Amino acid sequence: MPLAVISLRHGTTLEYRRAIADSIHQAMMEALHITRDDRFQLINEYPPEHFIHDRIYYGVERSERAVFIQITISHRDLAQRRALYDLVPAHLAAAPGVRREDVFINLVEVARENWWAYARSAPSPAGS
Amino acid sequence: MPLAVISLRHGTTLEYRRAIADSIHQAMMEALHITRDDRFQLINEYPPEHFIHDRIYYGVERSERAVFIQITISHRDLAQRRALYDLVPAHLAAAPGVRREDVFINLVEVARENWWAYARSAPSPAGS
Amino acid sequence: MPLAVISLRHGTTLEYRRAIADSIHQAMMEALHITRDDRFQLINEYPPEHFIHDRIYYGVERSERAVFIQITISHRDLAQRRALYDLVPAHLAAAPGVRREDVFINLVEVARENWWAYARSAPSPAGS
Repeated sequence: MPLAVISLRHGTTLEYRRAIADSIHQAMMEALHITRDDRFQLINEYPPEHFIHDRIYYGVERSERAVFIQITISHRDLAQRRALYDLVPAHLAAAPGVRREDVFINLVEVARENWWAYARSAPSPAGS
Repeated sequence: MPLAVISLRHGTTLEYRRAIADSIHQAMMEALHITRDDRFQLINEYPPEHFIHDRIYYGVERSERAVFIQITISHRDLAQRRALYDLVPAHLAAAPGVRREDVFINLVEVARENWWAYARSAPSPAGS
Repeated sequence: MPLAVISLRHGTTLEYRRAIADSIHQAMMEALHITRDDRFQLINEYPPEHFIHDRIYYGVERSERAVFIQITISHRDLAQRRALYDLVPAHLAAAPGVRREDVFINLVEVARENWWAYARSAPSPAGS
C-alpha cells in the first residue's frame, strides 16, 4: 500500500497526467513487486509560482514540465530503490514523454506496520 | 504536534468533511493520548481523476467516498498505532458515517525532536 | 535535495508567499549548508475550514496567518535541526513578517539514498 504523491505545474492535459500516473505505477509494480491493485496516487497541480525549484539545479536545466514524485513505502532494500530510480524515469520518458531532467523522486520509508486498510480477514493488506 | 493530512474526492459537504476531521482528532486523542489543542489537520480535496486507487483493492470494494489519511507523528509503540487503526475507522463510521472499506491510513513516524512550535518557555511543545 | 511543503490559508498576496518561500530557503541554506540551487518548494493554500488547528495551542494564541512547514530532508544531526528552528522563524519574522507564534515546523528525515534527480554524471546530486 504505497502512496505516490505526484506534483506538477498547471498546463498539462488530463491524458498527460494520467499517463504520468500510469507510468509511475508500472515502474512501482516492476521495481517493488507490488500488485496492480496496490495503487494509491494523488496528483497535485500547482500554479507556476507555487511550484518552486531552481531552473538549473545541479548544472542541469529543468523545465516547466518538472514533476516531483514523493513516494511513501515500507522499508525497501537499496536494490529496489535503485530499480525505482531506473524505472520511473524510463517509463515516464516512454509515456507521456517526460524528460529525465524533469523528474525528481523522493522516497519516505516507514515501518510495515504503519499502513492500515480494511481487509475481510487478518492479516491486513498493509505493508507494501 | 502530530499532523494529519486528509485527502478525499470533491463532492462532500463541509459538514461531512468537518465530521471527518473531528472524528480523526477524537481517535488520535484516545489512541495517542494527545491533548485537545494538539490539533493540526489539512484537508485536501481532489477531482476524481487526481485521486487514484484501485476500486477493488485487496479484494474489497472501495467507493468514491474513499479517504486517505496520512498522519505524521513522533515514534509510537505498536499498541498505540494499533489503537489508531481501531479508533479512526470506528469514529469515522460513527460520524460522518464513512465505510470502513473506504478508510486508508498511513503513519509517518519521526523523531520527537523533529517538531517545532513557539512556546513561551522551553521546552518546546513539540514531540507529540 | 530537500523538499519544503509550505501550507497556509488563502488571503495572502503572492509577494507575501514568495517572501515566505525565500526566507525558508535562506534559513535552510544557512542551517543545512545546502546550495542556492538546491531548492524544491511547494506552496499549498487552503480555505480556512481546511486548515485546522487549535487557536490557543500550548497556551499561545495562533492567528489566521499560521504557516505549517513540512520539510523532508536527509538525516541531520540535532545541531542542524535546531539551527533550522532558530533560523526559519527568524527569517520569516524579518520577511514577510510572520509572527513566531504562527510558525509550525515538522521535519521528515529520510536516508540519503532516498532522493533521485538526473545528473550528467554519477553520483547523483541527491542526498542533501
